[in-house]
Amino acid sequence: MVAEIICVGTELLLGDIVNTNAQFLSRELAELGITVLHQHVVGDNPARLEALVREAAARSDLLVLSGGLGPTADDLTKETVAAAFGDTLHFDEEEWGKIQAFFARTHRRPTENNRKQAMVPTRGSKIPNAHGTAPGAWFRDEAGRMAVLMPGVPREMKAMWAEQVRPRLEAHQNCTIHSMTLRVLGGESSIASKVAPLFESDNPTAAIYCKTGESEIRVTARAATRAEAEAACRARVEEFRAILGPCAYDVDVPGLAHTVVRVLREQGLQAATAESCTGGLVAQQLTGVPGASEVFGYGFVTYASAAKTRLLGVPGELIERCNVVSGPVAAAMARGALQASGAELSVALTGLAGPGGALPGKPVGTVYLAGGDARTGRVHLMRLDLGGYADRDNIRTRAALYALDLLRRMALGLPPEFGLTLEPGQPVPEL
Amino acid sequence: MVAEIICVGTELLLGDIVNTNAQFLSRELAELGITVLHQHVVGDNPARLEALVREAAARSDLLVLSGGLGPTADDLTKETVAAAFGDTLHFDEEEWGKIQAFFARTHRRPTENNRKQAMVPTRGSKIPNAHGTAPGAWFRDEAGRMAVLMPGVPREMKAMWAEQVRPRLEAHQNCTIHSMTLRVLGGESSIASKVAPLFESDNPTAAIYCKTGESEIRVTARAATRAEAEAACRARVEEFRAILGPCAYDVDVPGLAHTVVRVLREQGLQAATAESCTGGLVAQQLTGVPGASEVFGYGFVTYASAAKTRLLGVPGELIERCNVVSGPVAAAMARGALQASGAELSVALTGLAGPGGALPGKPVGTVYLAGGDARTGRVHLMRLDLGGYADRDNIRTRAALYALDLLRRMALGLPPEFGLTLEPGQPVPEL
Repeated sequence: MVAEIICVGTELLLGDIVNTNAQFLSRELAELGITVLHQHVVGDNPARLEALVREAAARSDLLVLSGGLGPTADDLTKETVAAAFGDTLHFDEEEWGKIQAFFARTHRRPTENNRKQAMVPTRGSKIPNAHGTAPGAWFRDEAGRMAVLMPGVPREMKAMWAEQVRPRLEAHQNCTIHSMTLRVLGGESSIASKVAPLFESDNPTAAIYCKTGESEIRVTARAATRAEAEAACRARVEEFRAILGPCAYDVDVPGLAHTVVRVLREQGLQAATAESCTGGLVAQQLTGVPGASEVFGYGFVTYASAAKTRLLGVPGELIERCNVVSGPVAAAMARGALQASGAELSVALTGLAGPGGALPGKPVGTVYLAGGDARTGRVHLMRLDLGGYADRDNIRTRAALYALDLLRRMALGLPPEFGLTLEPGQPVPEL
Repeated sequence: MVAEIICVGTELLLGDIVNTNAQFLSRELAELGITVLHQHVVGDNPARLEALVREAAARSDLLVLSGGLGPTADDLTKETVAAAFGDTLHFDEEEWGKIQAFFARTHRRPTENNRKQAMVPTRGSKIPNAHGTAPGAWFRDEAGRMAVLMPGVPREMKAMWAEQVRPRLEAHQNCTIHSMTLRVLGGESSIASKVAPLFESDNPTAAIYCKTGESEIRVTARAATRAEAEAACRARVEEFRAILGPCAYDVDVPGLAHTVVRVLREQGLQAATAESCTGGLVAQQLTGVPGASEVFGYGFVTYASAAKTRLLGVPGELIERCNVVSGPVAAAMARGALQASGAELSVALTGLAGPGGALPGKPVGTVYLAGGDARTGRVHLMRLDLGGYADRDNIRTRAALYALDLLRRMALGLPPEFGLTLEPGQPVPEL
């Protein structure tokens, strides 16, 4: 089956918004095994829309449209596609009742225009919208070609897709689809080379998406039943984990901070942060997770050298002797954070995020990361080299990711990815 | 002049990446006074690309293409468009020299495939690429219709657009364009209603883009010379500022934190932060600005109640009596941050970011914001109600924006947007 995506909206043609709907629908259709030949954007212009729909219907089995289902006069997607697919629209009392109820809940009254939204296909079918006023529409012409119309608002479109459209397409494709997303620390190329054969499989499929400092591997399985699809997904994810080891940190989570908060909670541990170059980024990510207060109470943003001394007890003499961007200062910050907070674990960062400030032997992007463990008195120390083409944002984001990963590893009793571990009392070498 | 945008790339059709090029080009073309009728995405398939190019050229004056200029066999945009525009390609020694030099700089050797990238239009012209290997191409057919080909990598495409393509289109449109972006705190609807008449002007044009808690107003002027266009832009921006007042906070900056750091530096002031619900977000935004260390040294992430007492000296009794989410606690945090840091200004936040944790009379989204001023001993206190449909991220982002704005206003000697101001020693009421 081949498909085309048509997004309707003048705001897209003016560049007011970026077309995330097209990406979402492309990815979902690919997972259903449906090939997307074209994406189009057209304005709210019936003549141009009709020409496009006729053209697309002549070469593809399925048209997926979003946008143009609103109440205003220039929202004409439904009328236009109905005509092109040889169908008509009629007024649907049930949908009109839902629209009236929706307005009543928000203490407003529908206008005469809103009646337009209650028009539904006669030969085709309506698609219920549980998240807004406009129902979608499903048309099918004599030759079996289909057109699916959904709202343009991404939140409504995605919900209607997941609840109504995807299940119907799965039934049409005679299968059930399940996806899982494995999150992996490290760049796409280093990951892809290790697991290349697993990307060649047709079912489950795997696709890799690169993020800053990490990648997502999305595994999608097609099977006759949901249970089989889930099992196939899970088995493939386990194969990835077996090869990738601890850098594959979790499945179906929004990010590493969520994993860290969960692991700390499971282990009954508290963590503290001491940040210089990242300036609160690690604390902010941890506290972005609901329920973080169970595992995180104290964050120190010691951007000035004096703050490192005053809040974390880092000796001024040490800063002077080793430089504030150094392993010994990072280690002292991590120890100081444990003392000042009473937490079991801490991470500390000091580095050069740039653009200025490079030191001899320490270019922009040099970051010292230390992890303190009050249970053992040990400190883990890593020198990160995050420079090259990276800008300030990128350096800070990747440094924070290393810090979160070190917290995760300390909580789980895993060794750090690299660097050295200092016993209590052991002097801290320059790195 | 009417235009169509064609983005070439299988990775777009698979949904691997979001099509930011289409948005960028649409916005730029709109500013040039060129109407965009269609955006298309097509894969690396010569037959489909050729059909699309012929169709688009039959109805539009200008085709703007990105992608498909790479060295591999399926990168065929240049060949395909040349055929459709009745042109041919020939090998260009100068471009080949540049490609070889580029590879030499990165210690690699070009392959035979890379020679393809040195092929340039015979009747049309090449477009130099100062940021990558592939030159662009400019075709013009007998009827005067044009096609512009640029690389797909957004960084290269945007640079080529700004340096080469936009100036040529400006000359073609017989004008010069200048844009300025005014940043304004507040939602799109509240802003738009105040300045609606200014959006109706044809030149300069103004467009509003909604962000979380703030909006961008982009003003674009067309004139015969750059100086005139700039002057017209500047004058229109001043009209906006006169109506919008202090919520219009800056022009052509990446965000409010940049403005705050600049203002603090200009005033020779230091600021400190004390954060509970935002968990380091304000500190992180300030330290995201290069040179922040001149104005920011201390950030306290006091997520636990005990941390508020230990680091900021907030009496445990006060927390118990008033609740940790309260005006008196926010005020005490702001005063404590001044004392613990020695800064002239501070902001403090305590609130309910959700999803759980609502209190009687204090739903999720209730945030107390206090600003301390060591120079006067005054504390400004605001109760923010950021709930409703907002999620945790949204509540935190908007709370941080209010905090940055309060810092800006204190540094500039402007009154807070709302709330009350407490003199030294004045008891803090519940809000």
